Amino acid sequence: MVVEIATINVKDGMSEAFEEGVAKARPVILRAEGCHGVSLHKSVEFPLRYRLMVQWESVENHTVTFRASEGFTQWRAAVGHCFAETPSVEHVVEVSLPQ
Amino acid sequence: MVVEIATINVKDGMSEAFEEGVAKARPVILRAEGCHGVSLHKSVEFPLRYRLMVQWESVENHTVTFRASEGFTQWRAAVGHCFAETPSVEHVVEVSLPQ
Repeated sequence: MVVEIATINVKDGMSEAFEEGVAKARPVILRAEGCHGVSLHKSVEFPLRYRLMVQWESVENHTVTFRASEGFTQWRAAVGHCFAETPSVEHVVEVSLPQ
Repeated sequence: MVVEIATINVKDGMSEAFEEGVAKARPVILRAEGCHGVSLHKSVEFPLRYRLMVQWESVENHTVTFRASEGFTQWRAAVGHCFAETPSVEHVVEVSLPQ
């Protein structure tokens, strides 16, 4: 399992619209092939900055399958107008630590 | 609850030492006041980059109480020699999304 961490800076005054857009588009992402969870996190230090975290079975489920799908178009239609810039996206894998 | 996201770039060749250091120091962080969880994640795109995610009851539990504690000294002693640069730290709060 990999986690997509998208850092999204929104335009000033667009926080509420962005959160509503994510709420609306979340089911679309959740229905995507290999998607196992979507959560949204707001920065304490930078109030216009969010982290969208999405659990995927593989990086390709996100970067290839989802991005080429109708779901991606719906996601961008719901939130794209709120973006201050193109989001930066990275994928991480949890490191197993002994208990 | 807030989540600390620390972005940590390690020196080339120090990934294994860093992961061992985190495993060693994790119980120290978990014992800190207000700490509710520690996980380590490795970047897919940048193999020397990690995200340490720590659940805290408040930002101050991390930035004030923990950083002034003996636990912080122990954490830095376990992993500090692996850092390629000072980690960048941000805190986020999960946004409640309708199901």
